[in-house]
Parts: sequence; C-alpha cells; structure tokens
Amino acid sequence: MKNFMEPESVALIGISRKSGPGSFNLMENMIRFGFSGKIFPVNPNSDEILGRKAYPNIRAVNEKIDLAVISTPRETTLRILEDCVAAGVKAAIVVNQGFADADSLGKALQKDMSEIARRDGMRILGPNTLGVINNYNGFTTSFMPITKEQVPIGLICQSGIFFVGALEFSRNIGKGIDIGNACDIGFCEALKYLGEDPQIRIIAIHMEGVNQGKEFLELAEKIVREKPVIIHKTGSSERGAEAAISHSGSMAGNYQVYKAALTQAGVTFLEEDGQMVYAVKTLLNLPPMKGDRVAVITFSGAAGIMISDSLERHGLKLASLSPETIEVVAQLSPDWMPLGNPLDIWPAVMLNGTEKAYSMALEAVLRDHNVDGVVCVAIGPEIPEFSFLDVSEALKEVTEKLPDKPVAAWLYGPNPGEIGEKFESTKRIMVYPTLEVASWSLSLLRDRHKVLARI
Amino acid sequence: MKNFMEPESVALIGISRKSGPGSFNLMENMIRFGFSGKIFPVNPNSDEILGRKAYPNIRAVNEKIDLAVISTPRETTLRILEDCVAAGVKAAIVVNQGFADADSLGKALQKDMSEIARRDGMRILGPNTLGVINNYNGFTTSFMPITKEQVPIGLICQSGIFFVGALEFSRNIGKGIDIGNACDIGFCEALKYLGEDPQIRIIAIHMEGVNQGKEFLELAEKIVREKPVIIHKTGSSERGAEAAISHSGSMAGNYQVYKAALTQAGVTFLEEDGQMVYAVKTLLNLPPMKGDRVAVITFSGAAGIMISDSLERHGLKLASLSPETIEVVAQLSPDWMPLGNPLDIWPAVMLNGTEKAYSMALEAVLRDHNVDGVVCVAIGPEIPEFSFLDVSEALKEVTEKLPDKPVAAWLYGPNPGEIGEKFESTKRIMVYPTLEVASWSLSLLRDRHKVLARI
Repeated sequence: MKNFMEPESVALIGISRKSGPGSFNLMENMIRFGFSGKIFPVNPNSDEILGRKAYPNIRAVNEKIDLAVISTPRETTLRILEDCVAAGVKAAIVVNQGFADADSLGKALQKDMSEIARRDGMRILGPNTLGVINNYNGFTTSFMPITKEQVPIGLICQSGIFFVGALEFSRNIGKGIDIGNACDIGFCEALKYLGEDPQIRIIAIHMEGVNQGKEFLELAEKIVREKPVIIHKTGSSERGAEAAISHSGSMAGNYQVYKAALTQAGVTFLEEDGQMVYAVKTLLNLPPMKGDRVAVITFSGAAGIMISDSLERHGLKLASLSPETIEVVAQLSPDWMPLGNPLDIWPAVMLNGTEKAYSMALEAVLRDHNVDGVVCVAIGPEIPEFSFLDVSEALKEVTEKLPDKPVAAWLYGPNPGEIGEKFESTKRIMVYPTLEVASWSLSLLRDRHKVLARI
Repeated sequence: MKNFMEPESVALIGISRKSGPGSFNLMENMIRFGFSGKIFPVNPNSDEILGRKAYPNIRAVNEKIDLAVISTPRETTLRILEDCVAAGVKAAIVVNQGFADADSLGKALQKDMSEIARRDGMRILGPNTLGVINNYNGFTTSFMPITKEQVPIGLICQSGIFFVGALEFSRNIGKGIDIGNACDIGFCEALKYLGEDPQIRIIAIHMEGVNQGKEFLELAEKIVREKPVIIHKTGSSERGAEAAISHSGSMAGNYQVYKAALTQAGVTFLEEDGQMVYAVKTLLNLPPMKGDRVAVITFSGAAGIMISDSLERHGLKLASLSPETIEVVAQLSPDWMPLGNPLDIWPAVMLNGTEKAYSMALEAVLRDHNVDGVVCVAIGPEIPEFSFLDVSEALKEVTEKLPDKPVAAWLYGPNPGEIGEKFESTKRIMVYPTLEVASWSLSLLRDRHKVLARI
C-alpha cells in the first residue's frame, strides 16, 4: 500500500486539459491538496497541462513512477495498464466506472484487469474509485474537493461518497482508501495497512461485500484488540443487495451472517447511514464503559424519562445511585425534591447556579461505584445574555480529574454548535444531537469494553 | 382556553424584582415577547417592578383580570388561588414545581388545587408548567426565552423543554400549551382547542401519560381527518414510566396499549426524541403518499444501496420504474450504464451537467405511474466555486409543475444548511439529515394517506 499512500512520483493518465469548477480535474485537486512529489500528466492530445509538461504515454516519461492514476474510458484501460507494467510501474489506481459495476463487457474487462495484477505483480486499486487520501503527507487522488485534517482515523470504503463528506465525515479522515470494485486490492490489504499504521488509532469501514471473508474476520479480530474497527455494512435489504452487485460488483452476502460474524469478531457493526460520525468520535475519544449502569444528570424531568427509554432500547440501565451521591445533590435541592436517577437538578440549579449544581452532581456520579457511565443534559444557549448557562468549562474540569468513565452530553436549546465544540475541546465529553444517539453511543462503549475484556 | 391563549389582562403573582440574565423573570420575558395587554405585577414586598406599579395581592388590583400566572412557593399557592377566585379571575397558571411531581404533601396540595378548579369553576393550567405560547398575538408566560414565528403548528406538552427549543423545535411552534402536572386542564381540552383553531394546521404532542384516555382517542380520531396529530409518548421503559410519575405525576400506562390505540386512531406515533421536528415538517409540507413505491434519484450508487436498506426498514419499497422513465435517463447516460431504481445519474451528470440530469430525472419519476414518492440524493456544496452543483432551483421548478407526490431530499457534503434552506423555500421538497430519516419521513406520509383514505 505504500506506493498508493506515500508515492514520491505520480503519473496521471487521461488527465483533462479542462480545469476549474465542473472539470473535476484530479491533477488540479492533487496540487491544491498539497502533494509535493513529482507529477507527470499523460495525455496524447496535449504538450502541457496546468503548467507541467505532458507526455503522450507513460513509457515516454522515462523516470521512476511510484503510482499511475488512470482515468480514461474503459476501452483503453487494459492497454494502458499493460503500458504501466512495461514502464515498470508497481501500483495503479483505475478511477473510471464501467466495469463490474456495469454490463457483461465491463465484467470481462475487470476480469482481465485482475489477471494483469496477478500475472505481472502490479497492484491495482479500483476500478470505480476515488483512490486514496493521506492527510499526513497531503496526498489525494480524489477528483472531488476534500477537507484536510490530521486525525488518527482511517477509512476504507467502496464509494467516494465517504471521502467527500457525508455528515461532515470527511473532516474525520486521516487516511482513506476507496477500494471501489476491488479487482485486486481488497478489504484485507487495506485493513492490514491501516491496522499496522501507528498514525491511525481507529478504523471506519463502509462495506458492500467482502471476498476473503475468513481472512478478513481473523484480521479484524486481531486488530480490534489495538484499535476499534467500525463497519457500516450496506445491502441489508434484498434490493439493496442487488444494487450492491450493480454498484461495485460486490456480492452482498447474507446480511445476518455478516452481522453475527463481524460482531463476534469484536467489530462495531452499524446499520444506518449517519451513525458513523458518532460511532467514530465516541470510540476514539471516550473510555470503554465497564458495565451497563448509567447515571443521568438532567435539568429536565421530561428528558430524564426519554433517556430512561433510550437506555433500555440500547441494552443499558439506570444506575442505582449511592446514598452519598444522592446526599450531595440533596444538599443543593429543596426538601420536597424527590431525587434518584435520572437526577433532576433544575431546583438545585435555581438555588445554587448552573456551574455549582452541574459540577457537584457530575463529580458525585463519576465517583459513585454504582455508576459506569454518564448521560448529561446541559444547556447550549444561542442567546449571548444566557451564556451563564454554559457549563462546559466546569464540567471539563471535573472530567479532567475523573477521566475513567464516559460522559455523553446532550445540549438543550437551538444551535448548540458552539457550546458543543467547547464541551468537546478536551475530548473527555462528547456531544450528541439527540438523547437516543447519546444512549446508543454509550452502548458502543459498553460493547468495546467487552471486546477488550475477553482477551 | 381563550383566557389562557389570548388574555387582555394578566396578573403576575410572585414575580421577582430581579431581572436580567439568570433571573428567569417571566414578566421581563413576557414584555420582551411583545404582549400588548395589561400586566399587573403582584408582590407584597415591592411597590414597583420593571417600571410598573406592583400590588400587594390580587384583590388589590380591582380591575378585570383574564389570567393569573402564579409562581410562588407551594406553601402559598392554594391561598393565592382562593384569592384569585375571590377576585373573579377565571383562569390561572401555576408555574412552580413541588406538587404531584414531588412528595406526599405535594400530591395532597395538588388534589386540593383540582378541587378548587372543580368547585369554583376557575380553570387551572399546571402546576409545574411554563404555561403557554401564542405567537399569533405575541403572548407567552414562559420564563425561558423563546423564538417567535407564526407557523401553523400547535404544541401540547408536559415539559417546558419543548417550548424552548429541543433541536430547534421552538422555531416551529405557533401556539403551545404546557399542561405540566395537569391538575385541571389536560390533553383533551388542549387538543380540542388547537383542533378547532383555524390558524393551526398540525398538532405536535409530548405525552407522559393521559387521563380520559377514551375521550382523548375519540377526539384525536376526529381531528386527524383535518390535521395531522403527532405524539411522542415517553415512558416506554419501566424506569421511564416510573420517572414519569415523579416528573409530572403521570401514570404512564401500558406503552404498547397506548401505541396500538393511538396508531389505530390515526395519530403519528413517535418513539425517539429528535424525530418530532422531522415529522412535523414532513406532514405539514409534503403531500400524503398514495402507495409504498419509491423512486430514488442518486449520484452515488452507495447511497442508493443505503436507501434501499432504509426503505425496507420503514415498510416501503423501490418502485419498478416504467420503460419511459428509464429511457429519459438512458438518453443522458453512457451505453454501458445499467439503469434501474435506484436511478444512478452520476454518469448523466458528468455528460450533461447537474441541473439538466437532475431535473429531467425528477420530472420523469414524478410523471411515472409506478411511483408514489421520491428520495433524491443531491449535493449541498460548502465550497462557493462548486455552487454549480446546487440543483435547488431546477428541482423546485419541477415540483411546482408536479406537486402531487412527496419528494424527500438528502444533501451530500459538509454543511448543507444553506442549500437546504433553498430547497425547502417553496415547501415542496423537504431535506433530511440522513437517508434513514428521509425514508422514515416518506413512511409517515404513506401512513397519513391511509388515515385519510379510510374516511
């Protein structure tokens, strides 16, 4: 994978002379992204592309080429791959569609492509792929613009959609590999690479179908001991499975078998789109949860009830708080206030102020031996004059002192984005868009603990 | 309810002399919100509050008072209510906690409160309530700041949390009634009021428990013929049901019985927090869906597979597109492109531009007799130079021409907010945060059609 992820010289074959909006010119994107190695554009109809000398074919380059990126119509692809072999290129990315994702001719072409890889030892990524992203050395082959951030998150996918930013996911990719139709390089190699990469601490996977199922499971089972592996396996429906064949030529396989086997291997298994971004930030930043007993701190009784419901839906339960914990909050509350779990601290807030009530309650539940994790309902005010309701600093201090149990927060009020970033800035409290997602996230941390405990 | 929702004169009993951030002064909030009627502050320790003459007790006011809002410690509440009766007040809101939500003394106090209402004919809202919002005449009794928008959406809840803005829900309230512990006014009266209100076209309800179950069901069944009624019933878990008793003194009842009965009555039944805002905008703006056959337009094969999965999870299915529809897109696509449903139009976009490919595809599926509704995966670009990917104008034109089938969109890319607002501006296409929620929303429209069809 090194030639793909850290090439020093790249040939771009079939690169367009058009640039700017709408041209989807991957050379332009690669330069903008910050690739500092050599780029050799190859286009028989041009002497120069984006200010660099263009070559009529790859053999004319006559320099060492680590990686060829091919985006030409499918009729020409095999010939070009053979040219690459002849030019001594060891790695190629085939960007274009029209292979196993298309008709019978496309399937035959892809079969020949696999054969070139097998016979001539040149590794091929794709076809039907945006290729790679490596934010640690500023390299990408994506023709879509992507954001750059050096986060320790590795992505393997079968669609460029995950590169560019579903639900801001792109902000969360340190290194990404789109295996596309996977004619040669598949999930196993990509997973092994990211698994061994010290810059990567968590691996997110979008999977339509996997060959080498047994090998993949063994590998995943080994890697999850070191790093969480999260898989969104699509194609649970019959029609979705059919569509997977048409999209990436993947056999989606029996979904329930996948689910059982991957879960058994210790993988975090996702079923719905939109969950990945929350699963990743949870498992990357919060500690595993050692049991299923959750304390709830809330200023709203109604929210407390909703959390009770969602905890049960996700296999967790309300902790029985110790008398010492109850006593801390009772001291802050009026006599008539019934206290339990959920711990309703609104009267305590009214009597003592938000910061004091919240930080004392959080410290008490984090010290409570009957508690494994916490859901905290706080306030994310939009209105500047209500900024005194912002308890992010106070709660961050508490979690710095007591970092061993996960704290999931839900912020009440419109536009809680800015306060949310303050909460998350020390990575000890994560913020979720709903109580449902907050509860679900704790259940992932519970499962993660079980995986680590079985070793 | 008129005295509560449209009072001309209000006495505020137990109002604080403190104002500004942290004081939660409901008089200050009421004035800021724009109430133009008379306000009589009542506080025995002050001659003037916020520039208005204060009275030692309500009998000293000696003017007609439509509504008394009482926020005093519970020990004083019954005496004050009797004062109100003596002063001829016909409606009172009891804001404070500490009644059926608290200890046995609180329960006894609330029982006496109900008795005052029954015996003396004064109607009481609460206790333990933020009271009301009426954005159509600028009136609120909430002590928390709330946003104002005259939308035809009515809310009934048992917690102020829904007033202030869970997930920006507050922006979507035209009129709101927080029944709190419901010592007198309950769900039935509130529902009847909003059901008959011509300014309200949809009713959203947060319910912990309901007395008068039979009466409520009959009323709901009648109102859903005119307006959608959406209920988030909390307390599905045993512990949540227990917490409901402690929060609003509500008997949560058997959750599955509630669910079956309410669904049978034609109510849209929600189970998770965060769903309400999407359910409301869907049922308010999009037409009911006459069948379960959904066309999917996508530029991403991977997204198409995920939609197939989520449609199946929500009881819908992929439409079998007519040959005419396929032909329209085939004309725009390369020969090798396999076309079906999901309709992958990326190659068509590359060859013909985004606007042409999207609008022709949408028009074709909306005209297709095999299609009842549409999920459209479009692009919400963050980057100005990619604004040519914005198809909101083109698709809005198509839906203006063909408004009879619902179109749910999911926008790809980071920060799709601004483009989302453009999509939604004519209220013919609604935008959802995930494909899962988009599919689920169509299922609500399918159910809505069934409710209307059975009449």
